[in-house]
Amino acid sequence: MTWLDLPADHPFGISNLPYGVFSTDGSEPRVGTRIGDHVLDLAACAEQAGMESHEVWHRASLNAFLAQGRPAWTAARAWIIDVLTNPARRDCVEPHLIPVADVKMHLPIAVADYVDFYASEHHATNVGRLFRPDTEPLTPNWKHLPIGYHGRSGTVVVSGTDIVRPSGQRKAPTDAAPTFGPSVRLDIEAELGFIVGGATELGSPVSLADSDDHIFGAVLLNDWSSRDLQAWEYVPLGPFLGKSFATTISPWVVTSEALRAARVPLPGQTDPTPLPYLQGEATADGASTAYGLDITYEVEWNGTVVAHPPYAAMYWSPAQMLTHMTVNGATLRDGDLYGSGTISGPEKGQRGSFLELSWGGKEPVTLNDGSTRSFLEDGDTVVLRATAPGADGTTISFGECVGTIRPAR
Amino acid sequence: MTWLDLPADHPFGISNLPYGVFSTDGSEPRVGTRIGDHVLDLAACAEQAGMESHEVWHRASLNAFLAQGRPAWTAARAWIIDVLTNPARRDCVEPHLIPVADVKMHLPIAVADYVDFYASEHHATNVGRLFRPDTEPLTPNWKHLPIGYHGRSGTVVVSGTDIVRPSGQRKAPTDAAPTFGPSVRLDIEAELGFIVGGATELGSPVSLADSDDHIFGAVLLNDWSSRDLQAWEYVPLGPFLGKSFATTISPWVVTSEALRAARVPLPGQTDPTPLPYLQGEATADGASTAYGLDITYEVEWNGTVVAHPPYAAMYWSPAQMLTHMTVNGATLRDGDLYGSGTISGPEKGQRGSFLELSWGGKEPVTLNDGSTRSFLEDGDTVVLRATAPGADGTTISFGECVGTIRPAR
Repeated sequence: MTWLDLPADHPFGISNLPYGVFSTDGSEPRVGTRIGDHVLDLAACAEQAGMESHEVWHRASLNAFLAQGRPAWTAARAWIIDVLTNPARRDCVEPHLIPVADVKMHLPIAVADYVDFYASEHHATNVGRLFRPDTEPLTPNWKHLPIGYHGRSGTVVVSGTDIVRPSGQRKAPTDAAPTFGPSVRLDIEAELGFIVGGATELGSPVSLADSDDHIFGAVLLNDWSSRDLQAWEYVPLGPFLGKSFATTISPWVVTSEALRAARVPLPGQTDPTPLPYLQGEATADGASTAYGLDITYEVEWNGTVVAHPPYAAMYWSPAQMLTHMTVNGATLRDGDLYGSGTISGPEKGQRGSFLELSWGGKEPVTLNDGSTRSFLEDGDTVVLRATAPGADGTTISFGECVGTIRPAR
Repeated sequence: MTWLDLPADHPFGISNLPYGVFSTDGSEPRVGTRIGDHVLDLAACAEQAGMESHEVWHRASLNAFLAQGRPAWTAARAWIIDVLTNPARRDCVEPHLIPVADVKMHLPIAVADYVDFYASEHHATNVGRLFRPDTEPLTPNWKHLPIGYHGRSGTVVVSGTDIVRPSGQRKAPTDAAPTFGPSVRLDIEAELGFIVGGATELGSPVSLADSDDHIFGAVLLNDWSSRDLQAWEYVPLGPFLGKSFATTISPWVVTSEALRAARVPLPGQTDPTPLPYLQGEATADGASTAYGLDITYEVEWNGTVVAHPPYAAMYWSPAQMLTHMTVNGATLRDGDLYGSGTISGPEKGQRGSFLELSWGGKEPVTLNDGSTRSFLEDGDTVVLRATAPGADGTTISFGECVGTIRPAR
């Protein structure tokens, strides 16, 4: 245990130690970790301790640290655990602990490429039924490959950033012509986002077995979606303006090491079995290179928890998504971000989008104040939260991913 | 005319002056312009001349210059024309002219977001017939909005970079299950790419009238495409691995000022008329804010010119694409790149992809050496070239965009 005054069950205990970028009044953004209700200024702590590589923590993003790769990430985590638990190190920690209430959190990475996947069978089935009612809900390719598309890196924002309601074109099948105006079906997608490091060369696919060297950690991700814009524009080249106005991520990156205790088998990929490059293999500890994650998620809408999407129900694994993304030789860059796609489970209360929760607007959701909602209204606030099993029987937290809707301009 | 020893009809004359990033043996990449068969080292020239803002030209990309915005771009062009035509400035030019044969060209920008549009009616119609033979070739939205999607910024490479044949999944409709292997239908898409500067704030659409402040210039763009990967993966979220392995751009950015003389009316948007935000308005000089560009393009395959796609036939204009891209409030960043989509004209010899030229492989193309081709073979080289009318009756060149196919690894 850490010598800090921290309850054993604190969700930001020694088994978590997420990385983020923070600043205090008048100071430059730099890298820190969260321990209990404090942020440890890693840049200052490592500098005082004379740690050689402290320079990468004096930056306004994690990208330089991401570039160092897995061995450096492992060493850094061991070093942080040492300074937080070794009483002899106390002097280089205590001066650099700042209450979380006193810091401003920034986007943790300079986002290189942003890809969004579609890895929940329940979500893809629900959306297929709603968007393409006359066809099979899952397209023929869905169980053979993790379907994904590129999103707009430049509009990934940090939790707490207000979301301006987008305007654009829409046309219902019954309308004679499209019309222009503020979106009337503004939605969320509750996802995990995975942060990539250890850049690769063009033409060098990353195997499932090597994917651990590139998945640095995970954040909560809200893929804000305008369903009316999306429905009109997305055939044949996919979502564009219906998604590109904003994507929110949580500020603390929970590391793959911290999430090791949350690994679980996937729910099953036997009908069909995927092609060999996507098939998990047993690792030394008896797990699979294509692991799922037992993450408990909650979606809060204006103070009412409306869904508990179970990440363990996802069909495709984080490693499979990364391997698929590079199988054509595409590079990875430090700061690449990929989303899981909406997390939805088999039950109604497990759906990770309002489109699904209100079944296309036909079954509005009732909030605690008695009001009903199908899609987001101006002033609405959405909070995403998640926890996972950590080492030694602990529970670790992702913190929060928050956004409030502002009126269209 | 410039006092340099340059024929009046040189395609890199004083009415062109594209920007690029170059280096010579042992020197750092920096910004230059091409004049005749020389590169003028703008960083060194401006520094010697004591020009205040020379610092932005001492960078390995144009991004810092792009950030300065339209007034700075206009002033810079006027300054370059002055130093090249004012004999009093000769001393700060001549020491900094380097033969083009002695420089290495780099990617001109650090690519922020990359979007690819689909702005040719002829191309979209051809592809619709080939990919979706049982439906109307143009989707119902096509003439109401410029359809686009995000591509992978991290795999945009500069002309001359070898292209490794991608591997991936494919499944023909007649196959029982997908198979994995090197792409067997590797193709090009001959496009223009537009370079964006003058970053905007989230929630601030850019009108057609203001788009000129953000379109810095254009390059040739080859959107390498694996048709077998694409056909299997692209429903419902659009192209992904079929495109993300590589996109090549030419090294010289021809500026919007240089392309002013190439502006022409669009071929027509009357049935239907687009929504007001996409409607061009007359400018002071009688032109429209939604202008086309009279650019003559050629596609060379292993030394045989196989197509002359006419850019003037494009349905959607560069300004309309930019305005549409931001109408939902999405930001622009310095270094954003957007492609026009394949340029195809109404005639067979005007098609900008091999998929169209060989009509899905049914009508192979015969090259000068007597060999026939439907798609790219290992070792094949593709060269894209284009010219446009410049000021004062000149013709200006985009240079070349070259790539050679290497075998799958």
